[in-house]
Amino acid sequence: MIVDIKSPTPSDLEIAQAARLRPIRDIMAEIGLTEDDVDLYGKYKAKVHLDVLQRFKDRPDAKYVDVTAITPTPLGEGKTTTTCGLSQSLTYLGKTVFTCIRQPSQGPTFGIKGGAAGGGYSQIVPMEDFNLHLTGDIHAVSAAHNLLAAAVDARIMHEDALSDEKLAKALCPDGKFAPWMHARLNKLGIKAETPADLSPEDRRRMFRLDIDPYAITLNRVVDISDRAIRNIVLGLGTKDDGRPRQSGYDISVASEVMAILALATDVRDLRERIGRIVIGTDINKNPVTAEDLGVAGAMTVLMKDALMPNLMQTLSGGPAFVHAGPFANIAHGNSSIVADQLALKLASGGYVITESGFGADCGMEKFMDIKCRISGLVPNCVVIVATVRALKMHGGGPRVVAGVPLPQAYKEENLELLEKGTANLASHIRSARKFGVPVVVAVNRFTADTDKEIEAVRQAAIAAGAEGAYACTHWAQGELGTLELAEAVMAACEKPVDFKFLYPLDIPIKDKIEIIAKEIYGADGVIFEAAAQAKIKLYTELGYDKLPINMAKTHLSLSHNADWKGVPKGYMLPVRDIRASVGAGFLYPLCGTMRTMPGLPSRPVFMDIDLDLETGKVTGLS
Amino acid sequence: MIVDIKSPTPSDLEIAQAARLRPIRDIMAEIGLTEDDVDLYGKYKAKVHLDVLQRFKDRPDAKYVDVTAITPTPLGEGKTTTTCGLSQSLTYLGKTVFTCIRQPSQGPTFGIKGGAAGGGYSQIVPMEDFNLHLTGDIHAVSAAHNLLAAAVDARIMHEDALSDEKLAKALCPDGKFAPWMHARLNKLGIKAETPADLSPEDRRRMFRLDIDPYAITLNRVVDISDRAIRNIVLGLGTKDDGRPRQSGYDISVASEVMAILALATDVRDLRERIGRIVIGTDINKNPVTAEDLGVAGAMTVLMKDALMPNLMQTLSGGPAFVHAGPFANIAHGNSSIVADQLALKLASGGYVITESGFGADCGMEKFMDIKCRISGLVPNCVVIVATVRALKMHGGGPRVVAGVPLPQAYKEENLELLEKGTANLASHIRSARKFGVPVVVAVNRFTADTDKEIEAVRQAAIAAGAEGAYACTHWAQGELGTLELAEAVMAACEKPVDFKFLYPLDIPIKDKIEIIAKEIYGADGVIFEAAAQAKIKLYTELGYDKLPINMAKTHLSLSHNADWKGVPKGYMLPVRDIRASVGAGFLYPLCGTMRTMPGLPSRPVFMDIDLDLETGKVTGLS
Repeated sequence: MIVDIKSPTPSDLEIAQAARLRPIRDIMAEIGLTEDDVDLYGKYKAKVHLDVLQRFKDRPDAKYVDVTAITPTPLGEGKTTTTCGLSQSLTYLGKTVFTCIRQPSQGPTFGIKGGAAGGGYSQIVPMEDFNLHLTGDIHAVSAAHNLLAAAVDARIMHEDALSDEKLAKALCPDGKFAPWMHARLNKLGIKAETPADLSPEDRRRMFRLDIDPYAITLNRVVDISDRAIRNIVLGLGTKDDGRPRQSGYDISVASEVMAILALATDVRDLRERIGRIVIGTDINKNPVTAEDLGVAGAMTVLMKDALMPNLMQTLSGGPAFVHAGPFANIAHGNSSIVADQLALKLASGGYVITESGFGADCGMEKFMDIKCRISGLVPNCVVIVATVRALKMHGGGPRVVAGVPLPQAYKEENLELLEKGTANLASHIRSARKFGVPVVVAVNRFTADTDKEIEAVRQAAIAAGAEGAYACTHWAQGELGTLELAEAVMAACEKPVDFKFLYPLDIPIKDKIEIIAKEIYGADGVIFEAAAQAKIKLYTELGYDKLPINMAKTHLSLSHNADWKGVPKGYMLPVRDIRASVGAGFLYPLCGTMRTMPGLPSRPVFMDIDLDLETGKVTGLS
Repeated sequence: MIVDIKSPTPSDLEIAQAARLRPIRDIMAEIGLTEDDVDLYGKYKAKVHLDVLQRFKDRPDAKYVDVTAITPTPLGEGKTTTTCGLSQSLTYLGKTVFTCIRQPSQGPTFGIKGGAAGGGYSQIVPMEDFNLHLTGDIHAVSAAHNLLAAAVDARIMHEDALSDEKLAKALCPDGKFAPWMHARLNKLGIKAETPADLSPEDRRRMFRLDIDPYAITLNRVVDISDRAIRNIVLGLGTKDDGRPRQSGYDISVASEVMAILALATDVRDLRERIGRIVIGTDINKNPVTAEDLGVAGAMTVLMKDALMPNLMQTLSGGPAFVHAGPFANIAHGNSSIVADQLALKLASGGYVITESGFGADCGMEKFMDIKCRISGLVPNCVVIVATVRALKMHGGGPRVVAGVPLPQAYKEENLELLEKGTANLASHIRSARKFGVPVVVAVNRFTADTDKEIEAVRQAAIAAGAEGAYACTHWAQGELGTLELAEAVMAACEKPVDFKFLYPLDIPIKDKIEIIAKEIYGADGVIFEAAAQAKIKLYTELGYDKLPINMAKTHLSLSHNADWKGVPKGYMLPVRDIRASVGAGFLYPLCGTMRTMPGLPSRPVFMDIDLDLETGKVTGLS
């Protein structure tokens, strides 16, 4: 550890600021990277070039471990902390290890939740950089996304103002097609060498996108919790300000560009996915893409540096990639494919610990069926994080609410509640086993948890098919708190993997959704509401039916209803509507209302944050 | 030069990409910086820590040269290019030299204008980084600004929902005042140790900001040309989404936070200025500040890295700071004070070439009366960039319009138009001389310009009080194109400076505005419209009358009317309204309608920009 452990455990920020950070160059040298392989961002961060992958391509991959969780309380059960703790323990045991986690949005950092760099003695550092701009990747996402949005409204305005002839002339001032225009020519089946060859009708089809202002699905984004711009009317003012229409803002991490950053396998793939982003439809209901708008190249240029994973360190001074942070409901909630790819080569002979958002029914299922399907990578082990607190809640314990003191049931031994609640854990273990991967359970232990309680969790876990369950005290003890877990994970990684996806891509959309609902959520079936039915028809016609499914569902229940704890049974999963992230490459059925823009609470976290002008250090970040 | 000169001159991007960039470490070593003094951002950029200033504080300052221009055509007359060319020539002559310029907004880069890194063989490189994210400073400005904006609307919503008692409890959950609350307690003249000591009335005054939704002057910002969000209605939806109100977006470089970044002299000053930002008034017309909202600390934390100047290089491989880029009308249009301060020490014994936005009536006047007044720095020389083209326009030549071929008058010798037009140059020279600083004229020479035309400019310049005027061909010839200019600047810098401000701060607001209007713009006087009169009264009551004046005026004429070329006479300058940037520290009278959000044209520059997937290089950036 690069920090001395104290008791009682100081604040996350105090621990992080007390760390004796290793220069990132030392960490680079240890993992075989030279300065030509990276762009340094100060002394403790570096972006790693993707061509490193080529150099190490013949190395065997490291063991690939996905950390997920049971259905959490609203407080979270310590997934990131356990990810860091497990990595730190593997480092302590002399293993080569790489940690891969998501970059957090600045919205929660200044809003309700505070930072997300892990906690206690299991963190990624420097914590301030982790929670603030880092190397600017989310800013790049915002810039690329909002450039696309500006292009949409500007195009509508200019098309309103220009005749077909003038529009063609404006777009091809030199009388030639721009390179990106050939994609649209092909899509429309138009054969022409120059704009002059176009018939008046083809010229109109080619250059007039005729975007339907009522069918634009693209919002603008900002990486701030800003409730007041969830719903806006834009385009007010004069004719020169565009057509007035209703729109809104999402938080940047909900942008499809963020999902693309996480799923792109290289820069060419990034360029193509960005080009495929659908912003809405034209008045004839044909999808309009970023490529149609001629903005996909510029967006890729804005994203080119963001595609390089950010190298940081754990509190053991071991290497960590912090890269991409897509939403875990309307997107897939996993860190980037390129970071995992690189880490698996850089930690060859050792372990890559990567984390999936939300519970195993959400993040892990998407890790397997979306992320691994696109990357071609195969996990060796799944770690499911559980807490006695959350299991008691699933067993019928009182409501757990953020900001309100924890009820007594959670502060004393209660084997009855706990044992009932382990059904939730068992369900997640069985889900993970369906992918053919061994499962180890990490019990993030709180001080009130008794040995009997831990033992009860262990027995339930093994009965459900886990390799074992281990009490973890990494928050207070760092690397020494997860040694048993680390040994178990190492053992599990030696077991054979019979990896399989939950569903094939070439079955109907409905079937894919039903498989997830039944196999993972335990539903009896799915009710497709009218809007969803219509989208299934439309997407099948458009050829989007071969995409994987990204369920947009609450993480607070295995079902669609956040109040149903434990293992809900005897219900039908309602799918309200289905949307498509064609660029990212998935359909996302909506099981409920997904909030894509948080709000600031009455006392936002930002009120605690300041800069100590004497020391230059950040204070109050949590 | 770190690039070989070719003829005909290739595109700016081709030249920049052909440059053999010096590692930024080599440049650092040359100017006496160690790795501990900087944060590297890749191999060709670094942020320099402000504590370097302390180490070099006993060094004499370098000579301080401000580059400005005559009243330009809409095409621009090559100020940045001349700034780079002059620096490159001084490097060629063996002098120590530092170039200081503004970071450009990404709006124009993807919209109408293209990049802003100079041009031809006089550029800052890498050009892609310069024009794109650089090190994220503008993103930091946007984040800090929009956090403030979100805090405003969230506060209104929560105050609507909470009683005085609940509001006090929400804001002081631990029963104590947060450190930043003492500023508001002091402002309100309330003496209390804890919230419990407050009378109900004082509690209400302290915690209920009662922001008037119709008196909020703060827009949100984005660094994209997005006309559709100039005017919006926000807060639509439900009660939870805040109060509906009219608002809008400005481009990020128009943010007061950007002006503060450019004017702050150190991190403490940054913190204080951010705290003083006024977002509007309460229902009793008292100003409400970022400090009142408790968000100034978090904003400072978001801006702390942005305050460090960005080290890059010219095409001579010489050091350049690219730092801050405030608007040149509603703000002061100059690069940062901290960059100039650092450069003057790092280039001790040599020269710092800094650039001011727009013409000398705008950027230079503000350089002197605002930037130098705050920094305490004294310039040694002013370089005024002129072109034969612009002078002919001022002499009555036909209209010059961007995107339309140049009329014939500008392509052949026309001494009559030119000589008439030199009055504009003479006016700017006399303006600069009023500050007691020697003036050298740089004639940015185009191929059509004849020797007789250059000579006519020279004579007019000298007659108006300039040291000389020199034809400059740095665009095509790099460092060899501005050698005469460089020699003249060196000679001018040896002359005594009798520096004085145009006006003292302690005279009435009206008097300050009238002095600028008469002395710099050549107006007969000022007409203060009713709104302006009211603001003068208000700002005087509020004690803002001691601030310097930042005129918001078109740069396309010495007057307020962009169509009046040459030296307009016999007019009164209308001041429509006056606004206050209390944090940045100036009042800005509005002489006309200032556009603070550009729009995308029918064929935006982004349509040319892409990434070459074979080489990884950016294409089409201009």
